[in-house]
Amino acid sequence: MILLGIDPGSVKTGYGVIEVDGRDVTVVDYGVIRPKSGLSFEARLLAIHDGLEAVFGRHHPELAVVEGAFHGRRAQNFQSTLKLAHARGVVLLAAARAGVEVVEVAPADVKKSITGHGRAEKSQVQEMVKILLKLKGRVPEDAADALALALTQSYRRRPLVTARRGGA
Amino acid sequence: MILLGIDPGSVKTGYGVIEVDGRDVTVVDYGVIRPKSGLSFEARLLAIHDGLEAVFGRHHPELAVVEGAFHGRRAQNFQSTLKLAHARGVVLLAAARAGVEVVEVAPADVKKSITGHGRAEKSQVQEMVKILLKLKGRVPEDAADALALALTQSYRRRPLVTARRGGA
Repeated sequence: MILLGIDPGSVKTGYGVIEVDGRDVTVVDYGVIRPKSGLSFEARLLAIHDGLEAVFGRHHPELAVVEGAFHGRRAQNFQSTLKLAHARGVVLLAAARAGVEVVEVAPADVKKSITGHGRAEKSQVQEMVKILLKLKGRVPEDAADALALALTQSYRRRPLVTARRGGA
Repeated sequence: MILLGIDPGSVKTGYGVIEVDGRDVTVVDYGVIRPKSGLSFEARLLAIHDGLEAVFGRHHPELAVVEGAFHGRRAQNFQSTLKLAHARGVVLLAAARAGVEVVEVAPADVKKSITGHGRAEKSQVQEMVKILLKLKGRVPEDAADALALALTQSYRRRPLVTARRGGA
């Protein structure tokens, strides 16, 4: 099954596509959508939407995994949270248009399933993602976060009994 | 010039289209997009986007007028503000896709230009909109709010010297 993790943001939106086959997880694609600076806010939203639409079109994921609804963000900068929510709106729209179900994963769940600690640093999560997925070289932070979301969901969905893989 | 006012919301999104010709203002269209209850949040966003896309397509407004960025909403329910921001994201996306410039108008400016008081009740604004635009019968609240946004912008744009209207 193909999972698409998405880490929305109005400046940078990370995405990561993995293929899950029993216990095997393969990275299919990852990247960051960065609308050009100088664009209006609504033009940035359009760039994010259209960039993701292309990702949905290329990989036909069965599930989109998006960071859950702003746990603990209340104390952070209110205006940047609102901008993020706008970006998240067009991310969800792209999923709905592609007919792909969306699941939300809380940041603490990502940290816990990737590092074993619900309060791990973001950089620790990103390093672990690279190790778990055997990625060499530099992986952009937002793409690593998106891959972490997809990977977390793959752990949730992992069947208790792995299907035997035969020669068929 | 055709102005499209939009009052975004994840449950109901109001819109109102007016045509401004010098000091004459004519109502062209108004309504409310109500995604079916029971839809997922992302399917609701899609319904809002596609509903507005149809409005942009029917009327080709030169300007979209959207309520400004959450003045004084901090104290209100945080989760509903976030939902609103998601809806606002797909509203801005629809405008960007239609190639229509977006202007934001603060709620207090709407109240002030429609009623003369920055702290007027919402219901007073809605009543005044009906009177100013000579609308008979029931106008849905969200549509009246959208018309109020467009009307406020029309006052801002009003030229100081009205062009003479001759036979030409």
